[in-house]
Amino acid sequence: MFETTFKETPMTALSTRLTQALALKHPVVSAPMAFAGGGALAAAVSRAGGLGLIGGGYGDRSWLEAQFELSAGERVGVGFITWSLQKSPSLLTDVLKRRPLAVMLSFGDPRPFAKQIRAAGARLICQCQDMGHVKEAVDAGADLVVAQGAEAGGHGGLRGALSFVPEAADYLAKHAPDTLLLAAGGIADGRGLAASLMLGADGVLLGTRLWAAKEALVREGHHRAILDTNGDGTVRTTLADIARQISWPHGFTARIRRNAFTDRWQGREQALANDIAVEAPRYRQAFLDGDPDNTGVWFGEAAGLIDSIEPAADIIERMMSDAVGRLAGHGGVRIVVP
Amino acid sequence: MFETTFKETPMTALSTRLTQALALKHPVVSAPMAFAGGGALAAAVSRAGGLGLIGGGYGDRSWLEAQFELSAGERVGVGFITWSLQKSPSLLTDVLKRRPLAVMLSFGDPRPFAKQIRAAGARLICQCQDMGHVKEAVDAGADLVVAQGAEAGGHGGLRGALSFVPEAADYLAKHAPDTLLLAAGGIADGRGLAASLMLGADGVLLGTRLWAAKEALVREGHHRAILDTNGDGTVRTTLADIARQISWPHGFTARIRRNAFTDRWQGREQALANDIAVEAPRYRQAFLDGDPDNTGVWFGEAAGLIDSIEPAADIIERMMSDAVGRLAGHGGVRIVVP
Repeated sequence: MFETTFKETPMTALSTRLTQALALKHPVVSAPMAFAGGGALAAAVSRAGGLGLIGGGYGDRSWLEAQFELSAGERVGVGFITWSLQKSPSLLTDVLKRRPLAVMLSFGDPRPFAKQIRAAGARLICQCQDMGHVKEAVDAGADLVVAQGAEAGGHGGLRGALSFVPEAADYLAKHAPDTLLLAAGGIADGRGLAASLMLGADGVLLGTRLWAAKEALVREGHHRAILDTNGDGTVRTTLADIARQISWPHGFTARIRRNAFTDRWQGREQALANDIAVEAPRYRQAFLDGDPDNTGVWFGEAAGLIDSIEPAADIIERMMSDAVGRLAGHGGVRIVVP
Repeated sequence: MFETTFKETPMTALSTRLTQALALKHPVVSAPMAFAGGGALAAAVSRAGGLGLIGGGYGDRSWLEAQFELSAGERVGVGFITWSLQKSPSLLTDVLKRRPLAVMLSFGDPRPFAKQIRAAGARLICQCQDMGHVKEAVDAGADLVVAQGAEAGGHGGLRGALSFVPEAADYLAKHAPDTLLLAAGGIADGRGLAASLMLGADGVLLGTRLWAAKEALVREGHHRAILDTNGDGTVRTTLADIARQISWPHGFTARIRRNAFTDRWQGREQALANDIAVEAPRYRQAFLDGDPDNTGVWFGEAAGLIDSIEPAADIIERMMSDAVGRLAGHGGVRIVVP
């Protein structure tokens, strides 16, 4: 049952279709979080044995180039917000010259970009929020599909991961058996990783847990806030996008910390839009100040499982050793046979 | 690793704190679904080795007595909607004379009923939708806590199971280590059961999967509808309660099938309330007719994992053997050690 093919590594590890396909040590990919997921975090995740993805976000070219420089020497990938990339597609052309290991597309139709990504030798990762998206991803020829549950921080959809992941696994098994599956949303420790593998995923995509890594580009006040917040303390909302004057397509909301900002405006979206001349700069300044109360603080329900800000490598190593222990011990359950 | 203490059973089984505490063969409890979870279903679940709970719902005394008669000879429990039970507390007194194995309370403060339930020798199960509820349940001295994810069919809350279950497990480990934990919401097969055990649960509460059992009190047209619906095809809403003129406390919504009824009224709740003299009888008649389109059809996101209406025993046996296979095989993952 125990094999020893990874003799060079100093710690226990799990071998899945994902680790085999991408030559990773651990079945862990970092979410390409806009603003928070820079080159330092992506490099740290890849160095720790996972796959780090730089958050291409809304497409700031000079920022993106600086982040790739910071990750130089590590095998990393990049993620884009698909509907935003459609407005400046040359960004993808430029990024592909950097030879990313993978390009992840989220929130929009991936098909217009799929051929270019795969022709450049990068793996196409499509993040999906419902079964309709999974079908689109398979049509696009995705190498990896992310089934993202509504628990996730930042933008997402409505499906809960616990049923969405196995439903996506069934669809892929039938229609695209070589496409790998990552679970996302609410996963912060070895329990979530082990559960995701039981649900049929080949690995996990970590957002919130790595947002709370030392290498993430997150203000100290926001990092402190996640330590003080349990999993009940977030909300799915359009308020942050209204305040930032970013016009997201219908159907996506962002999960952020429930705070004075969301308490003040939730259900009063039009009033916020009406006051935007005052409220947009106020939101922006509070964000820059690391104020946890008067701006969007971007984390998900996994907050309730997080009680430390640590280097990404420490987070991943503990997650792995815990998952291995649980899997080897069958989750503490005795298996009884006749 | 494999033990043989259950030699009398003809099939492989899992032994958890739940099976040990309640002398069950399988760590599976049926949700006490109002209207759908009658005595025949509860008895079938208990006969199959789990624990069946009769759905006490809104407290129809003669219906409840008839359902207990149908389950005669099996060890079953019962569940109540707590805020509704507060209006007719004598119902609990009467039911406790039937010596239910357990009484589950959902949706409201369990503390006023806790002492009476435990004094009668029944286990107190408290269904929780967020960490605030878990704290109340521990205060009430719950023997079992259900962490119900928003994926679930019927009434529920907002937390996703994948992060809520381990967060509840952490809280119980610290504050009430003898209280057992059930995962609920989106669990329909061996993958969901195995994942729940990895997340730290001692067993699972099954709603939607057993709503789709032959023994459930569900119209044929509604059973057919779940087979045609994937996991994207449900919605959390207050519409069904408005149409039924049941005044639910703020904070709870019901997940039902997305259909012509919900498409027509979602976002227009006040309009439905205004037209209630016409719409209430229309809703009720469509429900009685098993019309899948013009009434509430009560299932959750697990619909995407269900493609047959079967006897409860067959559902539970397949779930168990699949979970055992996945746990024994570590979810198909190789564990690699140095």
